[in-house]
Amino acid sequence: MTQTTSVARLSINAIRMLALDAVEQARSGHPGMPMGMAPAAYVLWTEFLKHNPLDPTWPARDRFVLSAGHGSMLLYALLHLSGYDLPMEELRRFRQWGSKTPGHPEYGHTPGVEVTTGPLGQGIATAVGMAIAERKLVAEFGEIAAHHTYVIASDGDLMEGVSAEASSLAGHLGLGKLIVLYDDNGVSIDGSTALAFTEDPLRRYEAYGWHVVPEVDGEDLAAVRSALQEAQADPRPSLIAVRSIIGYGSPLAGQPKAHSDAMGPEKVAATRETLGWPYPPFEVPEEVYADFRRVRERGQELQAAWQAQFESFAQAHPEKAAEFHRRMSQRLPEGLEAHLPRFAPGERMATRAASGKVLERLVPLLPELVGGSADLTPSNNTRTPDMQDFTRDNPAGRYIRYGVREHAMGAIMNGMALSKALRPYGGTFLVFSDYMRPAIRLAALMGTPTIFVFTHDSIAVGEDGPTHQPVEQLMSLRAIPNLWVIRPADAGETAVAWRVALERTAGPTALVLTRQPVPVLEGVRPDGVARGGYVIADAEGARAVVVATGSEVALALEAQGLLHKEGIPVRVVSLPCWEAFEAQTQAYREAVLPPGLPVLAVEAGVPLGWERYATRVVGLDRFGASAPFADVYAKLGFTKERVAAEVRAMLGV
Amino acid sequence: MTQTTSVARLSINAIRMLALDAVEQARSGHPGMPMGMAPAAYVLWTEFLKHNPLDPTWPARDRFVLSAGHGSMLLYALLHLSGYDLPMEELRRFRQWGSKTPGHPEYGHTPGVEVTTGPLGQGIATAVGMAIAERKLVAEFGEIAAHHTYVIASDGDLMEGVSAEASSLAGHLGLGKLIVLYDDNGVSIDGSTALAFTEDPLRRYEAYGWHVVPEVDGEDLAAVRSALQEAQADPRPSLIAVRSIIGYGSPLAGQPKAHSDAMGPEKVAATRETLGWPYPPFEVPEEVYADFRRVRERGQELQAAWQAQFESFAQAHPEKAAEFHRRMSQRLPEGLEAHLPRFAPGERMATRAASGKVLERLVPLLPELVGGSADLTPSNNTRTPDMQDFTRDNPAGRYIRYGVREHAMGAIMNGMALSKALRPYGGTFLVFSDYMRPAIRLAALMGTPTIFVFTHDSIAVGEDGPTHQPVEQLMSLRAIPNLWVIRPADAGETAVAWRVALERTAGPTALVLTRQPVPVLEGVRPDGVARGGYVIADAEGARAVVVATGSEVALALEAQGLLHKEGIPVRVVSLPCWEAFEAQTQAYREAVLPPGLPVLAVEAGVPLGWERYATRVVGLDRFGASAPFADVYAKLGFTKERVAAEVRAMLGV
Repeated sequence: MTQTTSVARLSINAIRMLALDAVEQARSGHPGMPMGMAPAAYVLWTEFLKHNPLDPTWPARDRFVLSAGHGSMLLYALLHLSGYDLPMEELRRFRQWGSKTPGHPEYGHTPGVEVTTGPLGQGIATAVGMAIAERKLVAEFGEIAAHHTYVIASDGDLMEGVSAEASSLAGHLGLGKLIVLYDDNGVSIDGSTALAFTEDPLRRYEAYGWHVVPEVDGEDLAAVRSALQEAQADPRPSLIAVRSIIGYGSPLAGQPKAHSDAMGPEKVAATRETLGWPYPPFEVPEEVYADFRRVRERGQELQAAWQAQFESFAQAHPEKAAEFHRRMSQRLPEGLEAHLPRFAPGERMATRAASGKVLERLVPLLPELVGGSADLTPSNNTRTPDMQDFTRDNPAGRYIRYGVREHAMGAIMNGMALSKALRPYGGTFLVFSDYMRPAIRLAALMGTPTIFVFTHDSIAVGEDGPTHQPVEQLMSLRAIPNLWVIRPADAGETAVAWRVALERTAGPTALVLTRQPVPVLEGVRPDGVARGGYVIADAEGARAVVVATGSEVALALEAQGLLHKEGIPVRVVSLPCWEAFEAQTQAYREAVLPPGLPVLAVEAGVPLGWERYATRVVGLDRFGASAPFADVYAKLGFTKERVAAEVRAMLGV
Repeated sequence: MTQTTSVARLSINAIRMLALDAVEQARSGHPGMPMGMAPAAYVLWTEFLKHNPLDPTWPARDRFVLSAGHGSMLLYALLHLSGYDLPMEELRRFRQWGSKTPGHPEYGHTPGVEVTTGPLGQGIATAVGMAIAERKLVAEFGEIAAHHTYVIASDGDLMEGVSAEASSLAGHLGLGKLIVLYDDNGVSIDGSTALAFTEDPLRRYEAYGWHVVPEVDGEDLAAVRSALQEAQADPRPSLIAVRSIIGYGSPLAGQPKAHSDAMGPEKVAATRETLGWPYPPFEVPEEVYADFRRVRERGQELQAAWQAQFESFAQAHPEKAAEFHRRMSQRLPEGLEAHLPRFAPGERMATRAASGKVLERLVPLLPELVGGSADLTPSNNTRTPDMQDFTRDNPAGRYIRYGVREHAMGAIMNGMALSKALRPYGGTFLVFSDYMRPAIRLAALMGTPTIFVFTHDSIAVGEDGPTHQPVEQLMSLRAIPNLWVIRPADAGETAVAWRVALERTAGPTALVLTRQPVPVLEGVRPDGVARGGYVIADAEGARAVVVATGSEVALALEAQGLLHKEGIPVRVVSLPCWEAFEAQTQAYREAVLPPGLPVLAVEAGVPLGWERYATRVVGLDRFGASAPFADVYAKLGFTKERVAAEVRAMLGV
């Protein structure tokens, strides 16, 4: 650290020792990365990052994403020293029950944490979404929305496919304000990166259209500074390769063993020696706090200047300013429901087509909606005629061509949703929800209101066959906590499903839609849909209930008709959203599904899970098959006759 | 097609017209890719591919993978014309119920189809596994196992993250016999690839360490030929960029609309005109069959030569030849069970550690076992002391360092399993099974006996927190048809789980293992484990059953003890594998879970699905939290007191 002042050195060592001591105290964690990247992070946080520790919600703050989330102590140390509301007491309780310093950074849990990271590749991909959001919001609101997005990423982040997908798209879109510090420390859990990672990642990023700064000495603050300046000046997204030394200062420096776990008292003591750090654990000398004070001061000045800028903007464009406030508070415009389309019973319309019709109404009303598809636009019905593509040259566009990159789409949508001012939705086939599950999970964990549009929702996909026919996906999505899964029965339920998804701000929603046409039904009740389940067709003296979702509701109604002729009255219940239904009172739920009555469930997916509601299930415990949809559907048992027969068998008649 | 002979032109047009007419007949499918890639595929299949249409199981055949599986008619046309058992009648029934020509190629369904493709990126990643298997088997058995692996991949394949991961690893390992024809047609479903894919993929592949042949005119047979020759000669994996014209010969040539759907009679007629094709649909002139006859003749000659080579090999190395036969027939050596380790009740051992101990015994006995981990080797306990790494320079090694590439690991393992002679297993954390779900699904769909080792199987992961604590993964995996999920309760059950997984050849198995130590239990019954569920501890006059899996079985046993003291006898059932249990007779199942008794299920995961067996569930309908594992476990309700209380509540006492 030749060019490092003594104060800088002290501050950097404070970060290192906080990380080392916290991991030691917890006897758990990852000291190596924070110790290696402390100098680069110090330069970034004290000289470049535009943020105000006293207001972590300032809309124009730069975003910092620790994609290598296992190095969480780096972030916690920086947050603490910079003056965020993260007292030393919380650092002492690193990785303990109820602390603000969990093992990996958690959005919504710790002030200043912008995104939940840890699952590798997600952070950098989410950051691409943040950078897209910034470009989009600047196009809409001007410089008041401008910020950079900075990422610290590891070898592991760069090995994951999701980062490859997202980085390719970032290059395509020319996201110049995205700057990634790549912790090029040559070490992964298994050992040297030479074991599995001998590609040339810098050349790869150049192939994506990125600006690359190679071989920056991670101990040389001036080199880091100049790389960051170069990155800011370049119109392309930037990858700065920081040659760091994992576990710097410790006896394990440069070794894979420095990556994780407490080093033990001897090695910690030796590190104190090497770094010349005389302070006991969790004690930071006043010079360090004084050094970081400028971060807070600079942040307050910057936000004050921005506030003045915003006020001029508000004077010049009062409506835009009001709109900005509305968007940041995630309030929908009033009276949205009145604008939803109505559908006439008797028509036949795929729910994906109905979804497209609903979007035609919503898109002009809700400028926060940003659509997209993973190269299935004509199939997902996600692009309305008055949408323009969001491109490098048209950042005001509202439709993102994600390419065949489902996983990146999920993470990027999460990144946009984190802006609060955008409400992203994106489409693919339901079966390919599997490709993006880690991003769906993170949306659920963070509580971001990402909207996943999954069309082609069952074996009724038909000719494309089992690789394209979801069977287990629907129930697998229902298994994710805090994800709402809505499978509307018809066009009318689809309109309500969109409203429910938009009104939900506490977590993501998956809309599960048919490829094939289904009848527009009588008996759809918007309030019932919003409650997750309701009686769509009752029968006097019902002896059983048939409960179904999506396309199988029409089938249940047909079976009801057959049984009616035989003098067997049955009630039909539509259950489009389990999560909403389960949030209702017991009284409501029992009014819909009376405890005394036997229940047959009908859904073109695995039966697993339906036992919660049903005595008997018409489902599918196998993969589908390639044939025209009506053939597949009927051959695999989805006929009104079968449903009626199962009801009779259930009743023993 | 300047340098094309009239016969070649005729054969190529036959492929094109079969594709176009089959899609037309089915009114469904993807004509564009087969029409564009017909010339390149023709050169590959007639001049390069070492295969014998009369014996699609010849072990040393070259593998052909249509990664762009939507172009299935290209493959079906080639199989038919080459003389595989795929009569014209089957081509006429393209995409119909029960035909041998489903929408996407399905392994095990159509002779000559090497791998199920359609979900983009999977084919190329699986092919990397096939190429690894070849190197490994050549290292073991010599040239009798040698073959090339050829792939046709699309823009979409190259956009998917899984292909990026696998391709990076292929470059790292120097898999020179892997040759990818990249259909560089500039078109995807949404439109021009310029919409989303403007990176330089060739440069990217160079960065991976691949040999790249740019800008090969897809209509120029000589250029394709010379590119393939160059690729064969180069020691690196090769990517040949074939500039093809999607929908060549049709009025939609070069347009996105050529990608999918029947073109309609007018355009089909116009194509006949343009290509000078006077024949009715599904009629192929004898000259074409004659042209392809050389494929069959060459194939028979090649296989006969190989057979002679194999016989010399068998004479020189009779034991190796016998071993080769054993391996190809997927038979395990006799008496494996006797070699499994025994564990003494009273010990405490994580099931991941027990798994490591089991592997220490199995690895020397089963040379077909190829291990690996996605950079979590020390955590997954997947590498035994006598394993060497499989590397570029040591292809005899048996352990693969996949790097942080879970998804590629899954697909690569599937590719190795398809060789039949290798039994791959690979480890990651259970929560990251989400990253590889599409590959797990394909293993289940194909019926390949891939073994997924998922450690760190619940909130008991502890300090790493909710991003690393699986909650919904276990049940989500159970939802996949034909995947066996085994969650052993202790070390003894873990040994049986490995045996069950190895004996299973009809599909994949997921082993779900603890991070934390659990007691070695009394009462473990190997036959019961193999049957999926059994009474691990009964009680005279049991009033209830507590059913549990994995680490929660010990908890159930402790609760049983508590309740016993209160005079409430309960039975404890261990249910490590639902799929095996559900394959038992009703009598067996009811002997374990008697219909009259109330059942409490205990599992540290989502309750969804447990209603199949249980009246009441101690589960987790939320994400976990970061804290030492004992704290998380207890705070989230996994205590013997809670379990006992729930039993009492269930019994109303």
